[in-house]
Amino acid sequence: MKSPVPDYLDEILDTYRSDTSGELNSELPDADADCLAIAITSVDGVTYSAGDADERFPIESMSKPFTYALAMHDVGTDAVHEKIGVEPSGDAFNEISLESSTGRPFNAMINAGAIAAHCLVDGDGCDERAERIRGHFSELADHDLEFEEAAAEPPHRNLAIGHMLRTVDMIDDDPEDVVRGYTRQCALAVTTRDVSIMASVFANRGIHPVTGAHLLEPSSVRHVLSVMATCGMYDAAGDWMTSVGIPAKSGISGGIMGVLPGQVGIAVFSPRVDSRGNSVRGVELFEHLSRDMGLHLMETPPFGQSLFRRAEIRDGAHYYELQGAVQFAGVEALAREVENRDQAELPVVFDLLSVTGFSDVSQRLLGDVVRRLREDDDVPVAVVDPDEVFREHVPAGAAAPTIVRSLDDAYDAL
Amino acid sequence: MKSPVPDYLDEILDTYRSDTSGELNSELPDADADCLAIAITSVDGVTYSAGDADERFPIESMSKPFTYALAMHDVGTDAVHEKIGVEPSGDAFNEISLESSTGRPFNAMINAGAIAAHCLVDGDGCDERAERIRGHFSELADHDLEFEEAAAEPPHRNLAIGHMLRTVDMIDDDPEDVVRGYTRQCALAVTTRDVSIMASVFANRGIHPVTGAHLLEPSSVRHVLSVMATCGMYDAAGDWMTSVGIPAKSGISGGIMGVLPGQVGIAVFSPRVDSRGNSVRGVELFEHLSRDMGLHLMETPPFGQSLFRRAEIRDGAHYYELQGAVQFAGVEALAREVENRDQAELPVVFDLLSVTGFSDVSQRLLGDVVRRLREDDDVPVAVVDPDEVFREHVPAGAAAPTIVRSLDDAYDAL
Amino acid sequence: MKSPVPDYLDEILDTYRSDTSGELNSELPDADADCLAIAITSVDGVTYSAGDADERFPIESMSKPFTYALAMHDVGTDAVHEKIGVEPSGDAFNEISLESSTGRPFNAMINAGAIAAHCLVDGDGCDERAERIRGHFSELADHDLEFEEAAAEPPHRNLAIGHMLRTVDMIDDDPEDVVRGYTRQCALAVTTRDVSIMASVFANRGIHPVTGAHLLEPSSVRHVLSVMATCGMYDAAGDWMTSVGIPAKSGISGGIMGVLPGQVGIAVFSPRVDSRGNSVRGVELFEHLSRDMGLHLMETPPFGQSLFRRAEIRDGAHYYELQGAVQFAGVEALAREVENRDQAELPVVFDLLSVTGFSDVSQRLLGDVVRRLREDDDVPVAVVDPDEVFREHVPAGAAAPTIVRSLDDAYDAL
Amino acid sequence: MKSPVPDYLDEILDTYRSDTSGELNSELPDADADCLAIAITSVDGVTYSAGDADERFPIESMSKPFTYALAMHDVGTDAVHEKIGVEPSGDAFNEISLESSTGRPFNAMINAGAIAAHCLVDGDGCDERAERIRGHFSELADHDLEFEEAAAEPPHRNLAIGHMLRTVDMIDDDPEDVVRGYTRQCALAVTTRDVSIMASVFANRGIHPVTGAHLLEPSSVRHVLSVMATCGMYDAAGDWMTSVGIPAKSGISGGIMGVLPGQVGIAVFSPRVDSRGNSVRGVELFEHLSRDMGLHLMETPPFGQSLFRRAEIRDGAHYYELQGAVQFAGVEALAREVENRDQAELPVVFDLLSVTGFSDVSQRLLGDVVRRLREDDDVPVAVVDPDEVFREHVPAGAAAPTIVRSLDDAYDAL
Repeated sequence: MKSPVPDYLDEILDTYRSDTSGELNSELPDADADCLAIAITSVDGVTYSAGDADERFPIESMSKPFTYALAMHDVGTDAVHEKIGVEPSGDAFNEISLESSTGRPFNAMINAGAIAAHCLVDGDGCDERAERIRGHFSELADHDLEFEEAAAEPPHRNLAIGHMLRTVDMIDDDPEDVVRGYTRQCALAVTTRDVSIMASVFANRGIHPVTGAHLLEPSSVRHVLSVMATCGMYDAAGDWMTSVGIPAKSGISGGIMGVLPGQVGIAVFSPRVDSRGNSVRGVELFEHLSRDMGLHLMETPPFGQSLFRRAEIRDGAHYYELQGAVQFAGVEALAREVENRDQAELPVVFDLLSVTGFSDVSQRLLGDVVRRLREDDDVPVAVVDPDEVFREHVPAGAAAPTIVRSLDDAYDAL
Repeated sequence: MKSPVPDYLDEILDTYRSDTSGELNSELPDADADCLAIAITSVDGVTYSAGDADERFPIESMSKPFTYALAMHDVGTDAVHEKIGVEPSGDAFNEISLESSTGRPFNAMINAGAIAAHCLVDGDGCDERAERIRGHFSELADHDLEFEEAAAEPPHRNLAIGHMLRTVDMIDDDPEDVVRGYTRQCALAVTTRDVSIMASVFANRGIHPVTGAHLLEPSSVRHVLSVMATCGMYDAAGDWMTSVGIPAKSGISGGIMGVLPGQVGIAVFSPRVDSRGNSVRGVELFEHLSRDMGLHLMETPPFGQSLFRRAEIRDGAHYYELQGAVQFAGVEALAREVENRDQAELPVVFDLLSVTGFSDVSQRLLGDVVRRLREDDDVPVAVVDPDEVFREHVPAGAAAPTIVRSLDDAYDAL
Repeated sequence: MKSPVPDYLDEILDTYRSDTSGELNSELPDADADCLAIAITSVDGVTYSAGDADERFPIESMSKPFTYALAMHDVGTDAVHEKIGVEPSGDAFNEISLESSTGRPFNAMINAGAIAAHCLVDGDGCDERAERIRGHFSELADHDLEFEEAAAEPPHRNLAIGHMLRTVDMIDDDPEDVVRGYTRQCALAVTTRDVSIMASVFANRGIHPVTGAHLLEPSSVRHVLSVMATCGMYDAAGDWMTSVGIPAKSGISGGIMGVLPGQVGIAVFSPRVDSRGNSVRGVELFEHLSRDMGLHLMETPPFGQSLFRRAEIRDGAHYYELQGAVQFAGVEALAREVENRDQAELPVVFDLLSVTGFSDVSQRLLGDVVRRLREDDDVPVAVVDPDEVFREHVPAGAAAPTIVRSLDDAYDAL
Repeated sequence: MKSPVPDYLDEILDTYRSDTSGELNSELPDADADCLAIAITSVDGVTYSAGDADERFPIESMSKPFTYALAMHDVGTDAVHEKIGVEPSGDAFNEISLESSTGRPFNAMINAGAIAAHCLVDGDGCDERAERIRGHFSELADHDLEFEEAAAEPPHRNLAIGHMLRTVDMIDDDPEDVVRGYTRQCALAVTTRDVSIMASVFANRGIHPVTGAHLLEPSSVRHVLSVMATCGMYDAAGDWMTSVGIPAKSGISGGIMGVLPGQVGIAVFSPRVDSRGNSVRGVELFEHLSRDMGLHLMETPPFGQSLFRRAEIRDGAHYYELQGAVQFAGVEALAREVENRDQAELPVVFDLLSVTGFSDVSQRLLGDVVRRLREDDDVPVAVVDPDEVFREHVPAGAAAPTIVRSLDDAYDAL
């Protein structure tokens, strides 16, 4: 049996294939207007694609969220926040207006903020910064990306923005040098498949779903996704949020990349763009994904119940198997399950082998559960935790559980 | 063993108890300024609370999202969209400015939009509408709510808004009558616990987690949450989204209600408010929940893997147990699991007993999986589906599975 | 011989008579759409008119500058400035937005500011204020004005504005009472001829050109005209200023009144209005007056030379006859003329009989001229000044001139 | 006797001499902060000055209105209007925002509009345009002006503006070249006396008061003055208009130039500027001139009466001597005087020797007066008009007057 997902994606593409509205961006006249592609990468690293998903095109503005996250990585969130705001600009026309109180660009999804973010990336001068970005983007895409050959002249609009940012001290370097570097950033050649994989790193809290590399801080990713949600696609913050509800960013070359946190990275590609510079069929595809596939931030399914893969009596003990990124609601559900277990006199085993993340508050709660089992109910507790994911709030003394490396060890210990 | 969650909430409250900054709202001088409460209700209907969670206070602006959703229920999304926008207003001062192109209030979270929403609720005149709202809110809170006794005079600001809405045809009724009704809506007495339960209905896609009643359409809930995310707390859309990331709405009486879709409803209460009218300690609590507990829209944990509770070989068949609200990413993961199963010659059982929701695209995908198992792999397939949740895309003819009412029937049928 | 001016005005009307574009305002459906009138009143009290200049219609918003000036008269400029700004609002749509820093209406030419101005006029309650305004307007028009019989219900928009002004403390009285009074103000019945005469009081610095009554302070008039110049007609301050350059205010009933300071009051009337509520043919007439007749603020002709009606040697003395409102530039020119006079040994006579105003700085300069004639040139000086218009800076002692009551006395005295 | 005016100006300067608030502009650190000067030039070409009126300083933004007028001269009003608006920007911060509907700079008084105006001046490239401007400004100042020696580097802000203007096609040339030329324009060295004389050309409708050269079209001057009135000094259009009422423009070097049409050109200089970049003592001086000297647009004295210098019976004829720029209101008054003359049977003489301008409508009206005198009253009419200023509407045939070259000829002819 073959997975039906690729066929399903093909079918979606077919729905919109005949729509030829929109125009090629005037700066990219040689693009193949008929190209159409979609790719989706899950947080466990599987990529599905359909259409011309291996066609190369310049990444353009889809580079913005990735560079923004990289700047946070390189200089820290606070330093980035000093130079770039987080509000929608409400101003499509010239993208140069700055926050009147701070002088900052409104956000990193408009050119002014993206140029400021580019300038914050590690590296001295145009070449080093462009190379730093090429290297990082290659890690995200999991193969070596290259710049388009014929590097365009920086457009006057971006030179204007660069000089203005220099005027208000939002960049410290030579504006023309910075803008040249930013122009190269936009000229990185990618495929729809590449972008989908890059987006999946955001969906997976900064960990690469394929290579497992920890590329970005979870807090930075959370921040970038928040800004994409309100500023990524339309100047009107509420419009995209209500109608699509997928944090996203488009590029003038016809790509749109989207992220559903904890679920998937998404990329679509179709070069004809509307008057706002968004790919016409790309927007249609995203609306389809949101409407028909329930891919919407506010459609997240319940997860409390599913935190623990198993909850059963096994070999004379209550056995609880946890999985994934463990957070408050998950341990809350676990605590309830433990509280209401049938046979309070049996020993308890917590199996953490499948746990991929364990927030501080979750560890505190699990520590409390263990302590109460030991102190209130006076039963033995074993925790299978070879990687020591549970280490901050493990009860000590009389309330301490037995920490073991395998399930067999756990049963031996009880 | 007692669940540690209530103790944990107590501890959070203690962290902020000594902060007495902010002022009582001038229209509510008799409130007990020291009150402090928090309540959290999970989507499976359990409410934890701490502090003065049973203290009564007027619901005020926290009523806005609920009335907005009710208006969509009563007259439909399109009719509501004609009268009320979805964009942040960026204008705290007088809350009366309307969209210049349409004349609509910017959104339903500011007074202008809330009054327009109130007017759309079923009912002739002030009394009927107020009673309709009281009834619906009582269903949400799962007990009978009452109006505060001394009904206040409608403030001049709201009368101004009412007359202006009438001028631009955003309301059709007598403005003073509408505003009187809206004033009563705001005077509904609730407790922190009530609000938490009400919020959990939004978290649970419109189904009451305790009573199971289907109170609101999922699409309306999704829409309201989207608007709360960008317009609920601050005029600046990006600020709350990046710093807290929980769709929320505050009331001048000191309450804030929040919703994490698929997870929890949240309510806090502390009557001293800041210059924007938001509860000082309430905002601090929300920031704490977001930061320390990872309750943030962009922190949603992975769910693809957890869709199916079991995936094992049981009694000579591949047994897959699905659960919860089944959506695209879940079936996608299932398809992969099936594709890669060890023994392709064994029969396959899909157990849908724990499925609570089944989107159209998911049914299509499951239908394709079944068809391919039957046609490509030529193995028997049984689906345990007594409630017929899988009914739109069940393959017919040679590709049809056996639909049974219980697991035992499934094994009998194979 | 008859003056050709009336014929000329007739001709102008004929040029635009056939233009029937625009619509009657929906609240004034019974107006005679074909009416067309113009009237011009010079600062010496002569009124020319053409067309239906004696047709009655409600004054509507043309009342705004007059009530604004009256409010300054009644409570002083500072008190008015606290409640009403002087900036164009740039916001045609709902006329309710207030200055964010002060809460004030942007200016007195939009409804919000006009209602605030109405409320500042002397009088307790609706009836007294409306009667105070009727009385003052009757003085301006030089005959008794009456309210239109069927008083309209206050429109919801104005009620909205009233309540909002009350909210931000820009009015202190009951909003509905204030708005009812304002509605009556707008319903005062006037003719085009009336409005032209009323406007001429502004053109003549607050002195009625016909009755000679001092009705308004010159500083208030100057202020009102400044506001009319930037806020009177279009939301865009620069448009009307560059294209017409006549301080003006229109009313929804189809009238426009304009003022060229020191020159003329102007009124036109044609009930069909454009989408901004300005009389279509009225605007055309004003553009014609500005373009073809050179009636533009920036077209003021030189006046320095013309300050003194005569400058000649008469009966053995230098005789200088001054006239009109004497200001700096006039006395400056006089000083030069005196300095360069032919026969420095002759006595000097200054004839002030035709002087109608004499600013402080002008008196200082004339005093200096007299002193230097007496001290430097040692010649006798006589000043004909029976009304003592020259009294603040008359040199004393050896430098004193002879002050006399008639020209004959002057020659006698020398 | 010496004119008291210079002493008076000295006195005004003394009033403000001790005020040392404000700071030198950071780009002009070598300026002499204590300099203080004032100069006033009347429309008949006399300049009074006081203080350091011959100190040289860069003209900076005071160049803007002059270049704007020159651009209209070189390419016509319509071509200029296509590229530059006439509205206040309301946006002090970065001066780069452009009209959203047209892409034009808001007005020519902000840098964006001034750079666009510079680019419209005749000349190929930076050097030619700068030289063209230097030449024209030298004509205005009536002596050869020079550039400051050390030409500054163009500031980043202006480079930003240049590139942005190029982006939106408001300039067609290389942005860096244009901005370099604009930087030189701003570096022209002038004295307070120079600026006062330059301003007097605007006050005199484009004719140089000293040289008599016709340098600018009256309609361009009218247009520039209108824009200065609303956009020249503060971002708020109404503030300067109500408080000072003199069309004006300041420069960052500490100068302010102002124009009262038909009266005077004004220049002040004091290098310490406030946070808006306006000279502190310069603004005080302008407020003084407006308040104490009655120099305010809305304070223009009556001029109707003073149009004709003489109106008397002389040698058996009614003799009317007209003067200055003859406009509608003047001929209107003349017509009245003629209509009411004492002895209707006497011949009539109109003396146009002192007429400096004669608008079309004025000629029409005078033509009608002549025709009626000839036809209705049957009296001889002579017009003294050697320069043929009255030529468009002279009646012909039986209604024709006798046109003569001197007063003696007139009496001979009758």
